[in-house]
Amino acid sequence: MVSFDLNHVIESQQFDRDILELVFRTADMMKEDLAGDRKLAKFLDGKIMASLFYEPSTRTRFSFESAMRRLGGEVITTENAREFSSAAKGESLADSTRIINGYADLIVMRHNEAGSAARAAEISRIPVINAGDGAGQHPTQALLDMYTIVDAFPQMNNLKIALVGDLRYGRTVRSLSYLLTKYEGIEIVFVSPPVCRMERDIKDYLDKYQVPWREEDDLSEVIREIDCIYMTRIQKERFHSIDDYREAAGKYILTPELVAQMKRDAIIMHPLPRVDEIPPVVDSAPQARYFEQAQNGLYIRMALLYLLLKS
Amino acid sequence: MVSFDLNHVIESQQFDRDILELVFRTADMMKEDLAGDRKLAKFLDGKIMASLFYEPSTRTRFSFESAMRRLGGEVITTENAREFSSAAKGESLADSTRIINGYADLIVMRHNEAGSAARAAEISRIPVINAGDGAGQHPTQALLDMYTIVDAFPQMNNLKIALVGDLRYGRTVRSLSYLLTKYEGIEIVFVSPPVCRMERDIKDYLDKYQVPWREEDDLSEVIREIDCIYMTRIQKERFHSIDDYREAAGKYILTPELVAQMKRDAIIMHPLPRVDEIPPVVDSAPQARYFEQAQNGLYIRMALLYLLLKS
Amino acid sequence: MVSFDLNHVIESQQFDRDILELVFRTADMMKEDLAGDRKLAKFLDGKIMASLFYEPSTRTRFSFESAMRRLGGEVITTENAREFSSAAKGESLADSTRIINGYADLIVMRHNEAGSAARAAEISRIPVINAGDGAGQHPTQALLDMYTIVDAFPQMNNLKIALVGDLRYGRTVRSLSYLLTKYEGIEIVFVSPPVCRMERDIKDYLDKYQVPWREEDDLSEVIREIDCIYMTRIQKERFHSIDDYREAAGKYILTPELVAQMKRDAIIMHPLPRVDEIPPVVDSAPQARYFEQAQNGLYIRMALLYLLLKS
Repeated sequence: MVSFDLNHVIESQQFDRDILELVFRTADMMKEDLAGDRKLAKFLDGKIMASLFYEPSTRTRFSFESAMRRLGGEVITTENAREFSSAAKGESLADSTRIINGYADLIVMRHNEAGSAARAAEISRIPVINAGDGAGQHPTQALLDMYTIVDAFPQMNNLKIALVGDLRYGRTVRSLSYLLTKYEGIEIVFVSPPVCRMERDIKDYLDKYQVPWREEDDLSEVIREIDCIYMTRIQKERFHSIDDYREAAGKYILTPELVAQMKRDAIIMHPLPRVDEIPPVVDSAPQARYFEQAQNGLYIRMALLYLLLKS
Repeated sequence: MVSFDLNHVIESQQFDRDILELVFRTADMMKEDLAGDRKLAKFLDGKIMASLFYEPSTRTRFSFESAMRRLGGEVITTENAREFSSAAKGESLADSTRIINGYADLIVMRHNEAGSAARAAEISRIPVINAGDGAGQHPTQALLDMYTIVDAFPQMNNLKIALVGDLRYGRTVRSLSYLLTKYEGIEIVFVSPPVCRMERDIKDYLDKYQVPWREEDDLSEVIREIDCIYMTRIQKERFHSIDDYREAAGKYILTPELVAQMKRDAIIMHPLPRVDEIPPVVDSAPQARYFEQAQNGLYIRMALLYLLLKS
Repeated sequence: MVSFDLNHVIESQQFDRDILELVFRTADMMKEDLAGDRKLAKFLDGKIMASLFYEPSTRTRFSFESAMRRLGGEVITTENAREFSSAAKGESLADSTRIINGYADLIVMRHNEAGSAARAAEISRIPVINAGDGAGQHPTQALLDMYTIVDAFPQMNNLKIALVGDLRYGRTVRSLSYLLTKYEGIEIVFVSPPVCRMERDIKDYLDKYQVPWREEDDLSEVIREIDCIYMTRIQKERFHSIDDYREAAGKYILTPELVAQMKRDAIIMHPLPRVDEIPPVVDSAPQARYFEQAQNGLYIRMALLYLLLKS
């Protein structure tokens, strides 16, 4: 039996295969409990989670707060945490973390600067969960993504996974790439315009773990062979001209025509919010899993709260 | 026995007389429970309400959140829901609604655009309550207004009701007008400056339901004959000149002199907040019911939460 | 046995020695309960606290909300209470208070204008706690400060207390000064630049209660004789020139060299947030009590909620 020996959840690399399996089995348990007898409805009764958001992210915050409340815990919350430092004209994150330690049993932190959650965790006597730190990581998103893939393909045999869109600046595809190395027989296809290619550090990491990868420009080139398409949004700001953008964007929209070419048992994922990279008409395709994926965020976050606070 | 067969609360027109009576009897039950043995203090234990406010309205939000908590339910809340769409640079209300469906058991939505709550309700598997949608409706306000009138006049015989102030742009008087058609023997007097007259659609609706109405310019002309005065604020911006405003505003201030001319058993209502259209000295008049009316909002919202979530 | 006969907590002067002792013993009880069997974990079950913040102060708000939740109570919260008056273009604090009375069992109010909490308390049928009102008071801060001093020096014999920094504009040192008069044998040293001297009204109050006080310019002059140093931040804006500021600020930084000269059983306090007036290296000094002091805020606020709502 694997024990959950993490004190904090800061980055994807913390999770090895055994701990991933433990988290995913716990998420299964949460899903069953919510659909069933609610034995866990008061499990975290009396515990307090502090939602410490230095920038607003209502969707992520709601997911964590719903998870905490579904387990009977309480929440104190701010999307205005930046006020800690502005009011003080310079209070350190360390001091803020120490103070919150007196008020809560766990901190969920969203910050605009990479590395913030790790710095808070160094000081904190209570668990810190990174809910996104700037250009850094968003590990609970990576966990729910991986959980969705494992759920669809329990055997995880010879899966071909396309990561599509803005791979250079997209925090989610970077975090997910780390987790994909924990599984055998995965092959990755990076599909992006040249200006949005996946960064070197991730490619090196994949090489180190002997995960085969290749790069493609055009989604239509690979659509037939893929088991899992992970779509992300391409932001206009990345391109030198609006014409470049229009040309590029068209290649990364998952049209019904492309979906029709997909394997029947393939799945379509997206971290959401989407804009036009997946048209609403695709929602009814059997491959569409992105709303289920978002829902899995609740189970994963309940699982992490359970594992971090159960003792 | 009437059953509550509404899945959502979007507009006043949804409520027929039987359902109104059911809601009002349930509100009575809430009032008794709060004053008494609190048998319902844990009735919604384990349920989560999402307060999804696309624009701030602390008063309305507090009323709903207090109602949910008085019944033992939990709340996840944002006054920053606009961030859903801005962060995504265009996420649809449909997608946001689908996501929230995974986190909560009921949505209370305030939005700046008319029709938003109805669009969310089309998608939502969980109940949606419209807490005001721009120039559209604010049905829970109309319900608490109607509840206050019925409470004061249980027989509802031959009531003469003056709606006073900005009738053209005032959402509350429009929503209330729909509900007034459900009762017999009501006569409406619209009291407003010419630039703020009630719109044609409401007048047509009243005609269709054979509710007599007339228009007056000046509150002092009708003050003696009225059973219920519903005051609203006139905004300066409606007038062409500040002189026009000053002249008009004076005619729609409920001075102590006017109150002295009212029937003893008449009632004064106001959706609040008020500014100077009812001077504080009037608060001690026996006819003043506006704070009781605000308090009724709690009972009505508890009743709706109870009826929508009890199954 | 002293009974707690305060209906509201508005200013330090309300607290006499007996009530202070009652509050502090109750805070002790809270500390024990949190560390022990949690008999009070559901004590305020079903009660609702309204956090009514007219300006953001996440730290103070979190402290109150954590206190309420540690006692099993619920919270409705806004840092946007100013919206009450802006939306209404002028709703009175009295009206807002009346409305909130219908939604909650206790109000915690932070306001930008001195006297606001007192005005709300005049109207309110439910308890109001002042969580800071502009240049006015912050009585719960003063209580937690006093509690920290009494905890460190239970005999309170011949204590010499230095209040250091911006004494003219600092709300906390003013509120604490009132409480210090309730104890025998205390001597106060005001340490500040001439532009930030303590105001006359406080000096007169101390004289009236025969509390000896003197003024010093330089912390290093008094560091050896002090039992308790209460540091506060000096804001640049108070000085006529940046050179004046630099010269002054250096005299009010508690360097490790100064700490080395302190009595071993002396204590260092700070209301936090700090900027550079206490360098982080001092945190490990045995005299440092400022994080414990912040933590005491939780016990004091739990005690006040308990005492105000227990009946």
